[in-house]
Amino acid sequence: MTSTYVHGYDPRENRRLQDQASTLVELLHWDTTYPEGSSVLEAGCGVGAQTVTLATNSPGALITSIDVSAASVVEAKKAVQAAGINNVTLRQADIFHLPFPPESFDHVFLCFVLEHLSQPVEALSALKYVVKPGGTITVIEGDHGSTYFHPDSDYARRAVHCQVELQARARGNALIGRALYPLLTKAGFGEIHVSPRMVYVDSSKPELVEGFTKKTFAAMIEGIRKPSLESGLMSEVDFDRGIADLYRTAEADGVFCYTFFKARAVKN
Amino acid sequence: MTSTYVHGYDPRENRRLQDQASTLVELLHWDTTYPEGSSVLEAGCGVGAQTVTLATNSPGALITSIDVSAASVVEAKKAVQAAGINNVTLRQADIFHLPFPPESFDHVFLCFVLEHLSQPVEALSALKYVVKPGGTITVIEGDHGSTYFHPDSDYARRAVHCQVELQARARGNALIGRALYPLLTKAGFGEIHVSPRMVYVDSSKPELVEGFTKKTFAAMIEGIRKPSLESGLMSEVDFDRGIADLYRTAEADGVFCYTFFKARAVKN
Repeated sequence: MTSTYVHGYDPRENRRLQDQASTLVELLHWDTTYPEGSSVLEAGCGVGAQTVTLATNSPGALITSIDVSAASVVEAKKAVQAAGINNVTLRQADIFHLPFPPESFDHVFLCFVLEHLSQPVEALSALKYVVKPGGTITVIEGDHGSTYFHPDSDYARRAVHCQVELQARARGNALIGRALYPLLTKAGFGEIHVSPRMVYVDSSKPELVEGFTKKTFAAMIEGIRKPSLESGLMSEVDFDRGIADLYRTAEADGVFCYTFFKARAVKN
Repeated sequence: MTSTYVHGYDPRENRRLQDQASTLVELLHWDTTYPEGSSVLEAGCGVGAQTVTLATNSPGALITSIDVSAASVVEAKKAVQAAGINNVTLRQADIFHLPFPPESFDHVFLCFVLEHLSQPVEALSALKYVVKPGGTITVIEGDHGSTYFHPDSDYARRAVHCQVELQARARGNALIGRALYPLLTKAGFGEIHVSPRMVYVDSSKPELVEGFTKKTFAAMIEGIRKPSLESGLMSEVDFDRGIADLYRTAEADGVFCYTFFKARAVKN
């Protein structure tokens, strides 16, 4: 069941992630640039949806991007090559068994990774181990509990909650965005600063209506139809009405809200 | 039942509103200043919690502040006098029966008012009638559906929902913040711009933990204990656990999120 909804494992999902990154790229990434010559570990790069942005925004940094899935690393290599980027080294590796000596990197970056891990604090601790003292960690996560919309709909809210429940059953956490501060605290980082990045969409923003409400969020929930119905979380009729109600929020009088959280902290 | 929870009718509630205004004043009001000599109608000023800020930020504007409650107007007069403000005229008046000729004001301002009205579009239309062409309306509202926190708690979420339900039964709408764009559209305003103002609170922000999470939000929900229990919306045990869980989010590893919405639009 896990692999039917975890990001990055089928072509449509890949496209959705790329759409998401290009729609949200400014909101999420504008303030992350690493200095010339600095070494950066991108942990959990998946198919490279964020890697291209990261490398483009820090052309002088030396970026090492890892993912636990060898298949994703192959895709990420293609994405990086297609973008003509040459400051990224890609390799298959596990956050919990990092093949790097202690204090190997100036900085660590991870985006949409912790939500999939059953031991996020341990992951952050493992990453802290390979950062130099004074180096930073940057973490970006969504939070599906931050979703609300107009017109409101119990069906739509329940459909969104299917994703939260499926991710919890796969030992992930779709509500992790709000918890970045305590997670980084527990992992022993200092100078933690959390910056919420709210996506507010009304019909005065047609690019976000199309690129976020419909193609990113509603499409993601639509994508978990099969496991949601198979798990008996909702009836087919109710789920489909929830999806219709999500798309309804993309009409002229609709509003859609979602919040990402970006945290930056220092290894003391 | 209405008067047991509607803002501004008892001393403790007044203090809470004043606390709220002084804690959130920068977040909500920093970008509202009216030019020297401009005439501004503040509709629904209540006990003057926002009036003092409004007048202080626009010392050259001529502000007329109205409220439907004569008792609130008396309190607002005291607040304005205590602050040494002399550019505000206070009077009792009803938004739906405004005692002003058409196009009397350069601008209109209202804050935490529409949430209490069963006919928000009609209220906005009535206010539009007294604004000069090219003048603006500024609207600020909260949205209790934007509330989420860590640690998450079903009891706390249900306690918050009691407020939503009580306000709905009083023909108000505690979820109105997200709907400002469609409401202003329906009332015929143009150039509508909605700006969400998210309050994100973790323990690195002790003033907000104290001033917002505890003294504003948790205190507000605690304040509807009696009508919530009397209405049978929650059992006493569950409600009290919800309140305890809300205060729990103010501890060192807790996080609290809430979003206000501020809209500005033009009468064409």
